[in-house]
Amino acid sequence: MRGKKRKVMDDGRDQRFDKRVHFSVRLMKSASTYKDIVVRKKDGFTQILLSTRSTHKNPLNREVMNEIQSALDRAAVDDSKFVLLSAVGSVFCCGLDFDNFVKHLKYNRKRASVKLVDTIKNFVNSFIEFQKAIIVSVNGLAIGLGASILPLCDVVWANEKAWFQTPYTRFGQSPGGCSTITFPKIMGRAAANETLINGWKIHAQEACAKGLVSQVFGPKSFTQEVMVRIQEITSCNSFVLENSKALVRYNMKIELKQVNERECEVLKKIWVSAQGMEYMLKYVQNKIHTF
Amino acid sequence: MRGKKRKVMDDGRDQRFDKRVHFSVRLMKSASTYKDIVVRKKDGFTQILLSTRSTHKNPLNREVMNEIQSALDRAAVDDSKFVLLSAVGSVFCCGLDFDNFVKHLKYNRKRASVKLVDTIKNFVNSFIEFQKAIIVSVNGLAIGLGASILPLCDVVWANEKAWFQTPYTRFGQSPGGCSTITFPKIMGRAAANETLINGWKIHAQEACAKGLVSQVFGPKSFTQEVMVRIQEITSCNSFVLENSKALVRYNMKIELKQVNERECEVLKKIWVSAQGMEYMLKYVQNKIHTF
Amino acid sequence: MRGKKRKVMDDGRDQRFDKRVHFSVRLMKSASTYKDIVVRKKDGFTQILLSTRSTHKNPLNREVMNEIQSALDRAAVDDSKFVLLSAVGSVFCCGLDFDNFVKHLKYNRKRASVKLVDTIKNFVNSFIEFQKAIIVSVNGLAIGLGASILPLCDVVWANEKAWFQTPYTRFGQSPGGCSTITFPKIMGRAAANETLINGWKIHAQEACAKGLVSQVFGPKSFTQEVMVRIQEITSCNSFVLENSKALVRYNMKIELKQVNERECEVLKKIWVSAQGMEYMLKYVQNKIHTF
Repeated sequence: MRGKKRKVMDDGRDQRFDKRVHFSVRLMKSASTYKDIVVRKKDGFTQILLSTRSTHKNPLNREVMNEIQSALDRAAVDDSKFVLLSAVGSVFCCGLDFDNFVKHLKYNRKRASVKLVDTIKNFVNSFIEFQKAIIVSVNGLAIGLGASILPLCDVVWANEKAWFQTPYTRFGQSPGGCSTITFPKIMGRAAANETLINGWKIHAQEACAKGLVSQVFGPKSFTQEVMVRIQEITSCNSFVLENSKALVRYNMKIELKQVNERECEVLKKIWVSAQGMEYMLKYVQNKIHTF
Repeated sequence: MRGKKRKVMDDGRDQRFDKRVHFSVRLMKSASTYKDIVVRKKDGFTQILLSTRSTHKNPLNREVMNEIQSALDRAAVDDSKFVLLSAVGSVFCCGLDFDNFVKHLKYNRKRASVKLVDTIKNFVNSFIEFQKAIIVSVNGLAIGLGASILPLCDVVWANEKAWFQTPYTRFGQSPGGCSTITFPKIMGRAAANETLINGWKIHAQEACAKGLVSQVFGPKSFTQEVMVRIQEITSCNSFVLENSKALVRYNMKIELKQVNERECEVLKKIWVSAQGMEYMLKYVQNKIHTF
Repeated sequence: MRGKKRKVMDDGRDQRFDKRVHFSVRLMKSASTYKDIVVRKKDGFTQILLSTRSTHKNPLNREVMNEIQSALDRAAVDDSKFVLLSAVGSVFCCGLDFDNFVKHLKYNRKRASVKLVDTIKNFVNSFIEFQKAIIVSVNGLAIGLGASILPLCDVVWANEKAWFQTPYTRFGQSPGGCSTITFPKIMGRAAANETLINGWKIHAQEACAKGLVSQVFGPKSFTQEVMVRIQEITSCNSFVLENSKALVRYNMKIELKQVNERECEVLKKIWVSAQGMEYMLKYVQNKIHTF
């Protein structure tokens, strides 16, 4: 499959010819193919699978983030009741693709930084603003932005083998994905800083105890447990689902967008500086040894 | 006792004839009898016991909610330092009385919906606005509104056998009792949605680990442990108790009232719709099999 | 060491003669000696150790709070990347020095109360406003204000033997150190009130599970584990560290200052009353038996 353009699959839900579906069909034409994600239109929901061609670690570069955003945009207007986000393989998402970023930085550091920060900002905002439920099935390790966006989603199920790490400060980075506000809200400032500053590696069960994860399932039953629950949510009323989500995040939306804005401003300052660049190169080299 | 009007008991605290007591006596005259709750005026506090005549599940219908509200109104102005809320039997509260509600819906769906939502709104507001401490002793299972009002109280002790469930979305309902804001604040959005959307059944120990419950006691020692602690709180200074509560909930009061308003608006929309009605009937039928 | 003026130690980091260092030197001259704390200027950070001369319990009286505040003021402007707060002995901090306070109350209750409350307010504000990371290594028990200021710090590591208690209401006191807002945010209102009203004794592991503490280490490895982590944080970029902290506490700063103001107003009201005084004396006498 890798290296080949993937077609959007359609499980063939009966499509009433209303405005929504019409719009969805139009979108499908313009964005019918994705390179680094797989999008499956299922009965009642849309499944988005991270599956980057270049590596099994599913890093987020500008292209991948744009693809996910485009898939979310489509699911927002079609008849999907919710989105199921997951990944192919043993890694959920290893965060920003610094290898790719460092390559671009060589030519024009400021321009490349501004571009990447803008992509991150839009990517994170698309999670903040998504009105339908986002359910994440974390199959394996989630690092950096791959972990910090989880609290912007609604339900997070994790494989017992999965673990989470956001070693921002240690690698000269400032936290992103609104983790500077969501992590302290979920687990308290002391635990949040242990992850953001000290890069504390949180195993699935611990992440569940802390509230980052909704439920943990053993590796053998993981897929099945997720599917049973997905079936149940599929049978829910979409008006109730959307309005329940709207109630839960009502007071958070504006605050989250402001936090995203501020986090991105700090990131930009770090990346255009010589020292920030140095830290990033160290991170890229370090990754080679730790993965 | 059931089926018979219960008299408010008075443990005979020495009553200085001041304005407060005068008002309390006056109230006692007009509201001296309750049908579905037992109110005991103890030395230093008021005990409210849910004990509906029709069933041991202590469901909340308009009459029960009005009775609790009236008992709270009285405790607010008499010399009670706090309120102890509990229930008779093995069930704390099974939430809204949908059986009763469905009966009323048959005649005039819109009017019955508006009336019930107004009662819920006032009921929840009376918890939000109560200035003295509300201590809950959860003797058994707490479902729906019976679970979602707990974070509006101050201290929640649970019997180890108790469990909590808020399967709103699954039964076509939107969450109430301010749970859309209190649950995410207490346990994080991922765990909150696992309860609100997926109806996750939380056992007492888990509820304690998540922060929904203050402390759990074994079934044998439960009543005794509660009573020892109640004695200790009774010996506290009432100025200190009230001001400590005022400090804790200072920034929350306005926000909670707005959330309650919004939640009730959504409930109203669901209940006046044909589909909402259908889901409710399914819930009522399903209950027969699951209880 | 006790009873003797302690000099500020300087580990002799190479000091570039810039404005910051110049200011730091000037401050060092005016505040070079502390009586009840030890301040060590280390390579990259400042260590503040509570170590009161009169007792091993490290209580907080006006002098100690002023000394800590002065040490924070200095660390704020010198080249320290962060502050490490800890204590000498088996007790971290037993909270306000009521024995000392009661002595002052004998002469002029109102004046003494106002003075102490002002000192507390400034002390707590100095934690709220401190822009660099504050890392706390809790060596032993932390009571009252000694526990309630912890959520105002950024990382809190605790010795497995440490425990935390804030028995405010039970001893006729209202909660302080912003605990009326930080405790409910961290552990939910039910657990927060169990500590603030019922004086629930929280052991280190439980405090970690609740989010009050970042990580717990066994008594044998505690000092070593802290030092390894401190070394890692020392190697972090100071721009990144400060900006990460700024992002995390951005929305909290104003709210915390208002909460501190309100808590201090209530404390003042209690302390100038005859009954508040009575409770405090009871506490002082009770302490003799419980410690």
